Amino acid sequence: MSRSLRGDIRTVWIGGVWPELDGGRFPVKREVGDLFEVAADILREGHEALAAVLRYRTVKDSAWHEVRMDPVGNDRWVGRFPLAENTRYLYTIEAYPDPYRTWVEDLKKRLAADMDVASELLEGAELLRGTRSRATGADRRRLDARLTDFEEASSTVARARVLLDEETLELVDTYPDRSGATRYDRELEVVADRVLARLGAWYEMFPRSQGTVPGRHGTFQDCIPRLRDIAAMGFDVIYLPPIHPIGRSFRKGRNNSLTPAPDDPGSPWAIGNEQGGHKAVEPKLGTLEDFGALVRAAREAGLEIALDYALQCSPDHPYVRAHPEWFHRRPDGTIKYAENPPKKYQDIYPLNFYCRDREALWEEMKSILFFWIEHGVRIFRVDNPHTKPIAFWVWVIGEVQAVHPDVIFLAEAFTRPKVMRALAKAGFTQSYTYFTWRNFKPELTEYFTELTQGVMAEYFRGNLFANTPDILPPILQQGGCAAFKMRLILAATLSSTYGIYSGYELCENDAVPETEEYRDSEKYQIKTRDWNSPGHLRDYIARVNTIRRDNPALHEYRNLRFYESDHDDILWYGKRSFDGGNTVLVAVNLDPFEPHQATLRVPLDALDIDPHERFQVEELITGMRHLWKGREQTIRLDPGKEPAAIFRLNRFPSKDYGTPCY
Amino acid sequence: MSRSLRGDIRTVWIGGVWPELDGGRFPVKREVGDLFEVAADILREGHEALAAVLRYRTVKDSAWHEVRMDPVGNDRWVGRFPLAENTRYLYTIEAYPDPYRTWVEDLKKRLAADMDVASELLEGAELLRGTRSRATGADRRRLDARLTDFEEASSTVARARVLLDEETLELVDTYPDRSGATRYDRELEVVADRVLARLGAWYEMFPRSQGTVPGRHGTFQDCIPRLRDIAAMGFDVIYLPPIHPIGRSFRKGRNNSLTPAPDDPGSPWAIGNEQGGHKAVEPKLGTLEDFGALVRAAREAGLEIALDYALQCSPDHPYVRAHPEWFHRRPDGTIKYAENPPKKYQDIYPLNFYCRDREALWEEMKSILFFWIEHGVRIFRVDNPHTKPIAFWVWVIGEVQAVHPDVIFLAEAFTRPKVMRALAKAGFTQSYTYFTWRNFKPELTEYFTELTQGVMAEYFRGNLFANTPDILPPILQQGGCAAFKMRLILAATLSSTYGIYSGYELCENDAVPETEEYRDSEKYQIKTRDWNSPGHLRDYIARVNTIRRDNPALHEYRNLRFYESDHDDILWYGKRSFDGGNTVLVAVNLDPFEPHQATLRVPLDALDIDPHERFQVEELITGMRHLWKGREQTIRLDPGKEPAAIFRLNRFPSKDYGTPCY
Repeated sequence: MSRSLRGDIRTVWIGGVWPELDGGRFPVKREVGDLFEVAADILREGHEALAAVLRYRTVKDSAWHEVRMDPVGNDRWVGRFPLAENTRYLYTIEAYPDPYRTWVEDLKKRLAADMDVASELLEGAELLRGTRSRATGADRRRLDARLTDFEEASSTVARARVLLDEETLELVDTYPDRSGATRYDRELEVVADRVLARLGAWYEMFPRSQGTVPGRHGTFQDCIPRLRDIAAMGFDVIYLPPIHPIGRSFRKGRNNSLTPAPDDPGSPWAIGNEQGGHKAVEPKLGTLEDFGALVRAAREAGLEIALDYALQCSPDHPYVRAHPEWFHRRPDGTIKYAENPPKKYQDIYPLNFYCRDREALWEEMKSILFFWIEHGVRIFRVDNPHTKPIAFWVWVIGEVQAVHPDVIFLAEAFTRPKVMRALAKAGFTQSYTYFTWRNFKPELTEYFTELTQGVMAEYFRGNLFANTPDILPPILQQGGCAAFKMRLILAATLSSTYGIYSGYELCENDAVPETEEYRDSEKYQIKTRDWNSPGHLRDYIARVNTIRRDNPALHEYRNLRFYESDHDDILWYGKRSFDGGNTVLVAVNLDPFEPHQATLRVPLDALDIDPHERFQVEELITGMRHLWKGREQTIRLDPGKEPAAIFRLNRFPSKDYGTPCY
Repeated sequence: MSRSLRGDIRTVWIGGVWPELDGGRFPVKREVGDLFEVAADILREGHEALAAVLRYRTVKDSAWHEVRMDPVGNDRWVGRFPLAENTRYLYTIEAYPDPYRTWVEDLKKRLAADMDVASELLEGAELLRGTRSRATGADRRRLDARLTDFEEASSTVARARVLLDEETLELVDTYPDRSGATRYDRELEVVADRVLARLGAWYEMFPRSQGTVPGRHGTFQDCIPRLRDIAAMGFDVIYLPPIHPIGRSFRKGRNNSLTPAPDDPGSPWAIGNEQGGHKAVEPKLGTLEDFGALVRAAREAGLEIALDYALQCSPDHPYVRAHPEWFHRRPDGTIKYAENPPKKYQDIYPLNFYCRDREALWEEMKSILFFWIEHGVRIFRVDNPHTKPIAFWVWVIGEVQAVHPDVIFLAEAFTRPKVMRALAKAGFTQSYTYFTWRNFKPELTEYFTELTQGVMAEYFRGNLFANTPDILPPILQQGGCAAFKMRLILAATLSSTYGIYSGYELCENDAVPETEEYRDSEKYQIKTRDWNSPGHLRDYIARVNTIRRDNPALHEYRNLRFYESDHDDILWYGKRSFDGGNTVLVAVNLDPFEPHQATLRVPLDALDIDPHERFQVEELITGMRHLWKGREQTIRLDPGKEPAAIFRLNRFPSKDYGTPCY
């Protein structure tokens, strides 16, 4: 509120606007196709009637659109506009007194009390003349006619009728007097990402491991035959670790050893050698053309390729020679490798994002993204964004999305909670989460309530990877295939976007003891797998992804709700589509070792089901159907058979025909 | 975060600042003498050490002061500054990387791992040379000496010692490199009101009823002998309904009748007649000089006079003739009286705050405040602020407090919750509340948790009036003296600021049936009371106000906590002084009709009391003392005797002398 006496005064109080992240400092995130809802407290002194509009435009348009906001009680108003385009939208609110409606309400009270309203009718006519002065064309002529009717009306009742009838009110609403309007003091932003930002199943694989001849370096061409399999499992995105030439200096050998064999391929994250850097491909994988062919083949198979954006260099990267000033340097001028004393990572040179030549460095980093965008990539999984300036991400994501709003950035920031949130606010489309380290009921419930139902849901989309090349969590190491099935169900149903790293479908669980590292990790060597080895989960994964596709409830991120189960090891939750047409309820035995039984509380009230109604649930993994009634159902889940059950609710609508039935 | 590449980049992320009301749009409120605490998330990429300062200044000063902020875990930092003056303060945060501390931590790890640190020592010396370049005077010479010691040191160990020792670190901390500092993007405001804004007992009385001869109009002079009594009851503020000349047109008679007797004095809220308006006093009360004498006498008795600021006019107010354009007018030019059809308030003309001559009107309204400030008034109880523009309050309170920060504005807004909050954000020092309509345990607990422990506590101070001339609540009408005692205890201990309207001490409870109006209300007639009539509560009130004065725990507003009692009618809560030195626990029987017994849960953990410790509680109304032990205590409260108990906690400190005791 302004403190000055002169000039415009704000006549309407607009506050408590939601969504408004951190006082309007950061945009919230939604997806194309959403109806975006904005609420605010809109009020004024006294009892005068108000009207309010939600104003919005895309960043590309200069013209604002408006939709009406409606009061929903307790001085709260709500309006909605469709996010039709993949772009950023601005929105704000304007509200104004509605003197005609105020006058109508007052007049009705007076008429009801049989009071003299001659003077009030003159006031109403004066207001209507104001409407006429704002109206145009046919409407102005209609208003002239109304005013003539008013003048010529022979009785108070007839005059009142002219001023109160539907046609008059409609005309008045069409030409409101907005001279006393108050505009909310900020323009807020919502990013409308494409739907894949919210809904997708990701599959991570090392292209060099996609060959079929053991020991031979796989190629992009080897990846192409794999696409059908991966698509058949129901994935949407294939994420590839870095595909660039790999450094030779201090190359790591198998199992992260410092003494590589001559043919050890090295870690793909040690980017760059004499054959090129971030804009080149490792020749053993093929050529840029081969990569292009893979991107096209993937697209034909209904898949998108995601690349790793890992901003660091091997000592052999062309940047090192061309731009030594971009790196951290010792007093003697040599370049510093990465260290976390006493650990040394001599195969990696971190970039100095604050160097004197910062602007050129940042521009070059940006150009890497545009290079791969040119080659058909629209998804970047960003390696360790929490070791680069947050201001860099604000800038570079803004630059890219201004031109290519369809580009998705996934933050691989396994770090402190506040830093993860800051990166999401800074612009990352999606984020990795602590999911792999949340095993049991209280911690799963607490964490996913925070992610999906609080303020974080406005800007932070958790992509739940069940494993990664760096994280083979203890539950998978020790829980066998039952744990792989259980953790897959959790990932695929707690979030609308999730992923696995290849080998998951084979229940690979061989770890370096006391660590979460894979033994014989693909990070340092080529693997060739038999994708059809006994006990594989490919069909199970395909089933789960089909269930995800078939059920709109699972397409949403913010609709997760936890329900009560009376056993500590049985997690019980559900999702409902926003139109209420699809409801999925999930029970998961979190213990991969033992069967457990629980009584589940069915959220009948939330589902509008009468406690006496019989309804059908269909378990979507097994196809079994059950008739349920009442608030409590008992379930037994045996991890040796099915560690989880996914129920779709099917009701039997009872129709009472109110008209004859032919 | 800026989206530009060029220019300064923000290297430190500062977010989640608290307090920050509505993104910094409104100031929070505190009182002189408080230590104001500000917290923020402060973080950066990587693991570099950070430093942060809280910057603050009063609105009158141009120079900023700084205090260090300290990390408290999870990237949260906290700093505090004292609110030494009754004024507004601005505050913001600045944070910057601390490369020397980062370097020290790194070096220590290397030394611990027995790594070669020759190069690192050179880097440290370079950083120290940077410190030297910023240092001045003796410190610069000290740094020169440190650097010479470094150059001349014969071993790595000796060189490291120079760079790591206390003196060096202290010098480095004194001259930080703040070139990479990030300033928080907003300057926030805190109003430091005087303590009376938070802590006070108010007594409302009609001066015309303070005479001793029945039927005779009381005067300001009659009020003076009353001061000693009111001060003896322990009050701090005497609030007087309007003292101005009262209109004659459509004057209301006894019990709000439309047919007044010739000697009926009329409602003081129908302000103004030919003898003057808002800047005059009703001649029957005395002169402006008499009023001045009352203000002085009150001050001598330790009391302050609060006036009513009621912005409306009787038809006889001088403004009506001089400024007809300031009022709402009918099409025929006549001035509109107040109406809520079918009710007519013909004795009241509302002002039109949006009239064409708005600026002159607002200035005149402001001048009323300055007039009474000139006459020694520093507290205004504002009548119906929710019927005037919120923008007017923002402006007028800002104008007054810029010159007189000690002026207190109490909003008498009994209206919708969002409007009440908006007025408090707009600048009102205190607000009336829904207290009179909150009788039972769940509603009292919920409402006062909201008022004192949530965001509202940052800007809304609830002044709990137990009754007003407009509100004699049913519980007082029907509950007899027990209810008056019970509601007094609630008002006086739930909030640090509360009030009663005179007659409360006599348990006056005669209502117009089916309403909350007093029968024979003082609003329309003069009352003469026998203040010593049997059954009066004056001693009880004095006792309660003494307990308030003696117990610092009751001086605070935001320290209210509710505890568990196992009986629906026994409310159990407490307050603790911020230094922990004073703890008060209150049990109240909310049922004025029947005795009830409850088991109370004693919050031993919050009080740091061992479950096996014996401690003393002193009941402050009766003076009874008890020894308690353990988490549960039983209490029985008989409304016929004492409807409430106020316990002060007295512990028996057990001292173990660690040194000989002489």
